Amino acid sequence: MGIVLGPNRYGKAETRLVRVHRDGETHGLVDLNVSIALSGDLAATHLTGDNSGVLPTDTMKNTVYAFAGRHGVAEPEEFALLLARHFVDSQPQVHGAKVSIESFAWDRLGPHSFRRRGDHVRTTVVSVSAAGTQVVSGVTGLVLLNSTDSEFHGFVQDEFTTLPPATDRILATAVDARWRHAGDDADWAASFEGALEALIGAFTGTYSYSLQQTLYAMGAGVLENRPEVAEVRLALPNKHHYLADLSPFGLDNPNEVFIAGDRPYGLIEGSVAREGAPTATAEWWL
Amino acid sequence: MGIVLGPNRYGKAETRLVRVHRDGETHGLVDLNVSIALSGDLAATHLTGDNSGVLPTDTMKNTVYAFAGRHGVAEPEEFALLLARHFVDSQPQVHGAKVSIESFAWDRLGPHSFRRRGDHVRTTVVSVSAAGTQVVSGVTGLVLLNSTDSEFHGFVQDEFTTLPPATDRILATAVDARWRHAGDDADWAASFEGALEALIGAFTGTYSYSLQQTLYAMGAGVLENRPEVAEVRLALPNKHHYLADLSPFGLDNPNEVFIAGDRPYGLIEGSVAREGAPTATAEWWL
Amino acid sequence: MGIVLGPNRYGKAETRLVRVHRDGETHGLVDLNVSIALSGDLAATHLTGDNSGVLPTDTMKNTVYAFAGRHGVAEPEEFALLLARHFVDSQPQVHGAKVSIESFAWDRLGPHSFRRRGDHVRTTVVSVSAAGTQVVSGVTGLVLLNSTDSEFHGFVQDEFTTLPPATDRILATAVDARWRHAGDDADWAASFEGALEALIGAFTGTYSYSLQQTLYAMGAGVLENRPEVAEVRLALPNKHHYLADLSPFGLDNPNEVFIAGDRPYGLIEGSVAREGAPTATAEWWL
Amino acid sequence: MGIVLGPNRYGKAETRLVRVHRDGETHGLVDLNVSIALSGDLAATHLTGDNSGVLPTDTMKNTVYAFAGRHGVAEPEEFALLLARHFVDSQPQVHGAKVSIESFAWDRLGPHSFRRRGDHVRTTVVSVSAAGTQVVSGVTGLVLLNSTDSEFHGFVQDEFTTLPPATDRILATAVDARWRHAGDDADWAASFEGALEALIGAFTGTYSYSLQQTLYAMGAGVLENRPEVAEVRLALPNKHHYLADLSPFGLDNPNEVFIAGDRPYGLIEGSVAREGAPTATAEWWL
Repeated sequence: MGIVLGPNRYGKAETRLVRVHRDGETHGLVDLNVSIALSGDLAATHLTGDNSGVLPTDTMKNTVYAFAGRHGVAEPEEFALLLARHFVDSQPQVHGAKVSIESFAWDRLGPHSFRRRGDHVRTTVVSVSAAGTQVVSGVTGLVLLNSTDSEFHGFVQDEFTTLPPATDRILATAVDARWRHAGDDADWAASFEGALEALIGAFTGTYSYSLQQTLYAMGAGVLENRPEVAEVRLALPNKHHYLADLSPFGLDNPNEVFIAGDRPYGLIEGSVAREGAPTATAEWWL
Repeated sequence: MGIVLGPNRYGKAETRLVRVHRDGETHGLVDLNVSIALSGDLAATHLTGDNSGVLPTDTMKNTVYAFAGRHGVAEPEEFALLLARHFVDSQPQVHGAKVSIESFAWDRLGPHSFRRRGDHVRTTVVSVSAAGTQVVSGVTGLVLLNSTDSEFHGFVQDEFTTLPPATDRILATAVDARWRHAGDDADWAASFEGALEALIGAFTGTYSYSLQQTLYAMGAGVLENRPEVAEVRLALPNKHHYLADLSPFGLDNPNEVFIAGDRPYGLIEGSVAREGAPTATAEWWL
Repeated sequence: MGIVLGPNRYGKAETRLVRVHRDGETHGLVDLNVSIALSGDLAATHLTGDNSGVLPTDTMKNTVYAFAGRHGVAEPEEFALLLARHFVDSQPQVHGAKVSIESFAWDRLGPHSFRRRGDHVRTTVVSVSAAGTQVVSGVTGLVLLNSTDSEFHGFVQDEFTTLPPATDRILATAVDARWRHAGDDADWAASFEGALEALIGAFTGTYSYSLQQTLYAMGAGVLENRPEVAEVRLALPNKHHYLADLSPFGLDNPNEVFIAGDRPYGLIEGSVAREGAPTATAEWWL
Repeated sequence: MGIVLGPNRYGKAETRLVRVHRDGETHGLVDLNVSIALSGDLAATHLTGDNSGVLPTDTMKNTVYAFAGRHGVAEPEEFALLLARHFVDSQPQVHGAKVSIESFAWDRLGPHSFRRRGDHVRTTVVSVSAAGTQVVSGVTGLVLLNSTDSEFHGFVQDEFTTLPPATDRILATAVDARWRHAGDDADWAASFEGALEALIGAFTGTYSYSLQQTLYAMGAGVLENRPEVAEVRLALPNKHHYLADLSPFGLDNPNEVFIAGDRPYGLIEGSVAREGAPTATAEWWL
């Protein structure tokens, strides 16, 4: 039986771009990490090292900086669309482009001074191919905690179960969420802010009997608030906070002193979709 | 239009297990990081917080340690199969189990003394469901470098291309490879060692005109040497080494002094398959 | 010539404590990473394995949780003082204690809901010994950027100098600062907030001809604003932003498009002291 | 009271250099991370932004690459000495230079093919000033484990002590060691290999009643085997392996199944010196 080349793609990952928009005295700052992956007629370079269809990854990097200069950079979804369409439109052998962007937020300190936030990373993955154009937005690294209003009991008991039921516990997670837009045109800034607010609101507003319940509420919250979103996917680590046993020291611990654990951690992954929404045209996360 | 729960799963991630096998004076050491994800009839906990179908992730952790005690731990594929089958077989509401294991290698220094290798991580992902049992093995973090026998030229030139052709360059990568086995029974140790040797042999033995060509050779090398493997997937960062420009200092640089770059980096992803091999029964990497 | 034991210490590092203060409906949250190191009469355990003078590091961890329960946790300096004094006072063979705390800030989202900030880590190092009690406060991971008002020229030119003078550049750094207090009693919360404000104010308010100049202004700013501080030490990486060369693409780049570099980076370290302030009683950072 | 500039230094950190030595068909590979810090008459740039005494950090980076081309790179201690002396000798306002190098080891796979080891990093810190020339060598990231021959008991019991005595436990650490040479001329390669062997031999060969005892044996072992070494400093995390409690599952655990912990961890720091050895001429680690 023969050996054959299967699906493949290539590109430049993690091109770090900082774009200053100078509007007189007041400057704007955009801070991005851009990754590009192209697919298409690429068999020759794999099979024989014939690079006649290969646009260098160095060129992709150059294109990021050149486009940032020529067009400026507003919302990351828009910049990713611009780049992805450019590669598919200008290179006949390229049939698909995936542009992934991490955006780092900064708080303004003055007309040209900034402080990096660090509390979350905004993400975008745009896929352009003959099947269609797909825009996914998201957030990672957003750490949320409720110090009460979380229970966990009534679960399955098998021979390896020792966990006691909990009627009051800390619930904490580092939100990793992605949401697929129904179309490729939206008010991306408002959409992101609205989705973020919905995620946070659902986390804090849900009296939770399981992190799964909170996950569903977060996904549903985005869909209820953002009509432009077709589907939400979430991966929520359960950042365990173990109640410290202070009884050897003659002390009570009424849910006040916790050991913040590193590993292992629960990991809850799930998706929430709008019925009848357009289906995905490219593979995406989860 | 309504809002519905889509695909989901949950489990305990990164349970750190060290298993000592005591055979008289001589000890064996197994060092694993085990992650478990279960899927099945889990709608209730998402929609209402009813946990009657939820086996706690804490129980999954306990099961890892209990099985390590009861059965010992030989090859990670075998241990992952044991765990995955246990959850599907013992919990009627669980229809699918995915067990992912990272294995850390240690060199022996004496009968009960060891030194951690650190040059690669062996990986395993076992998926058990009604669709079948799928075993994927792999390696990450294996950094390889050829200081010559690599060229890159003849590529597409567009308006953003400034890269000069290279007729002698460093080729370096951090191998991230996964291979799907045709069956669920093999000599896992020999299979892993053979696959690793094939990957390294193809990397060092290929006079390369592109990292894509090397990637294909690596995938084909595994398939040629390991009949039990059905398909290989690789993600190879092109760890760029830029020739330092020493001309301002009156010095030549005949491919001797290089700047090792961090970001950006090329990223070449591809798969190589055996024709007629059984198809995948679970989604896997890439 | 003989071989002798020199300076030594031991302790428990990175005890992760989350303390919830429940005041009716409204909860407070304190999130710390506590490291303890003790020194004293410890020769026996080194030379013969006689542990009769060794308080287990496990006990130090227990003490952190027990004290958090018994005393609560307000400002990290206060909690570090409590712990350090406890070990020196209760263990005759312990002559010195160093307690280092990282504090992670959270923004309040509701009466018992929180969002982790992630934009800086507050640090404290308290040293208690016969020489005295020393309190050092600090901040790490605070990333600041001015998009203009920074120049760099007039520097030394040697045979290896190729850097062109810059009359307008981005100045960015990740502030790592420590300040030593003159005493061991202060309004720690106000002191930290005031010092942080002074650091940020000096960074944004200084028209800079070198990062050294900015560093000095930042240190002096803390001393001018906080009379309780005796000395400030700073390590400021120069997070280089390289102007992208867009000329091959027929584009100008009037300080708008930058490549954010990872490595190498400049590293500027310096201290600023108040004349006549009490001298340090323990070795500290830098 | 006035505000004054205190000790300060500056330089370029983490210049990543890969040097290929081409000797016909067979290539040598040196992979370094070089950090440089200079001190001297630097008040002007701090106080007024006058850079007339500032050699740019960019020039330091250039010097690393130029020297690598001109002189080649053999042992890191030698290359660090070359660089440190260059800056002090060529810049009258520079009175002190500290050059720190991390060296990454590669295993040879062929005449020009290599595989990165990853099991340790070799370190060097050279300090040159009017006080003298000091060479420190070291190793980090070397992870060692004994699965038996370690006990811990007879320790202090206070009201917070709950740790049971252990008569058989895993002892594991990630060695971070530095050793100061008596002079500035040695067979650096043999010295490093000999010191590494002595560290490993003492770790595996010591029946240990405390990690302090093992630390002392490791330091003494280096001094006994390497006459050129004056003093050894070690920081040894106690990488805890907790015995899993399998009794709820009706299973014994005779030191076979362990939970590898992340945080907290013990941290044992100490130094071992040769009596009568020359004293340090520059501050160094620990």
